Parts: sequence; structure tokens; C-alpha cells
Amino acid sequence: MLKDIENANAKFYEAFENLSITMMESVWSHNDNCICIHPGWEMFVGWIAIRESWATIFANTENIKFTITNSKTRIYQEVIAVITCLENIEMFRNEAKIQLGVVATNIFEYNNNQKKWLIVHHHGSPLSNYFPPPLVQI
Amino acid sequence: MLKDIENANAKFYEAFENLSITMMESVWSHNDNCICIHPGWEMFVGWIAIRESWATIFANTENIKFTITNSKTRIYQEVIAVITCLENIEMFRNEAKIQLGVVATNIFEYNNNQKKWLIVHHHGSPLSNYFPPPLVQI
Repeated sequence: MLKDIENANAKFYEAFENLSITMMESVWSHNDNCICIHPGWEMFVGWIAIRESWATIFANTENIKFTITNSKTRIYQEVIAVITCLENIEMFRNEAKIQLGVVATNIFEYNNNQKKWLIVHHHGSPLSNYFPPPLVQI
Repeated sequence: MLKDIENANAKFYEAFENLSITMMESVWSHNDNCICIHPGWEMFVGWIAIRESWATIFANTENIKFTITNSKTRIYQEVIAVITCLENIEMFRNEAKIQLGVVATNIFEYNNNQKKWLIVHHHGSPLSNYFPPPLVQI
């Protein structure tokens, strides 16, 4: 079970790196009460609004790479899982490399129909003082 | 049940406004895997570290007032609840009034021994563009 949840989390970041709405669609629950909070933004509620926020982000991102560290997983009643992790982000803007750290709370719910874990909540927030860990400084 | 969870959330902000460690102790789960992310900071894991972070914040805060808006509650399996809300904060620093908006994800777990809902996760992140709602501008 733990492996399945961690895989679901990895697929979320894979969708983000690939700037792929199709991949993002397959990792999120399409429920009206899903919530997504991008760094610095207000909350988006419901899959339709969340999908649009990703489309906007993808349209304005050229290249982004995630290295996930400090990941903690908690599972409740075998149906809800909370992963908290640090997103070490490398991106390019106007040919300049930007490195930033974002702390994320990702909540997954087990979907009985699809027999897999789907994201119902993502909250990302920027770190004020970020120092990339050695493995990200390559 | 919804009322109990919303009360637990209200008590969390009451503890913060009162800068009271005793009140904060009574609303949090004292588990080793609790997580707390203050705006801009890295995550604190486990009650001992979280308690210390609140003590530091309280020691450095003179006066803080919360007005909670846009609150959304989701309950899973009657044991886990996620409240997402906007903290409209008014505080004073060097006699100047500061207004800021923080989006929060608060996760509560029902504690069978204490027969009440306890916080197991708090994630607060600053809004980049914050406009206080009319009710907060009084």
C-alpha cells in the first residue's frame, strides 16, 4: 500500500515535469471538493478550476525539474494518505536557471472504482531560505 | 460531527490569538508524526519540535488577530477531517498594523481516548496578493 501511494506521488511530479494535462488528469480525483493551492495563490476548489490552473501553469512554464526530498507518508484507515515533502525545483526562465524549494502537503484518497490512489488535495508553499541539498547541486 | 471539527479549528486559532502554549497543547495530537509548516519555513515533525516552534512564535509575537474566511471542510471515514481556510491576519509590529493573508490546510484526527478531534497537520502559506475582505477592514 505504501509503495502504491508513493508511486501516486511520484506520478504527480512526473505529470508536472512533463507539463502534461493528460497525465495530471489521471493522478487527480475529478471531484468537486478537491483543493489545490499553488505557491502564493489562493485556493482552487473543484477539479474544473484545478485543471484550468494546471493548464495556465503549463502554458507559462518552459522547463521544470523536481527532486523530492524529506518525504513523510502517513496513512489513515487505509483510505486516506498524507504525503509531506520538499520539492527541490530547478527551472529555466529567460535562459537563467532558477532553484527554489517548495514544501508540499499532498493528500490521496483510495478510489475503489479505479482501484488506485488519487490526489484530492495539493498545497505547495515557498521556502523563504532555501539551500539546495547536495544531490540537487550536481 | 461537522460542528465538533469546526470547533476544533476555531480553538486552534483561539490558542494562537491568546499566544497560549497550554491551549495549543490541548488542540494538537502529541504524536511523533504530526507535521507543522509555518509560512515560509521548513516542516517541523513531531509534537516536541512543533511545540517548540509555537513557543518561539509566541515569544516573538505581541498581538495577533485572526478572521477566518472561505473555510471548506471534508470528512473522510469519520476519523480524518481536512479544513482548508483563509487566515485574515492583523498584527502589530513596532506599533504599525500589518495585514496579511495565509492559506491553511489543517488536518484533524478523531482521538478515541480523548473523545475529540486533534490537529495532526497544519500547513500555512502566505498569499502573494492579499486584499482583506470587507468584514476585516472595519
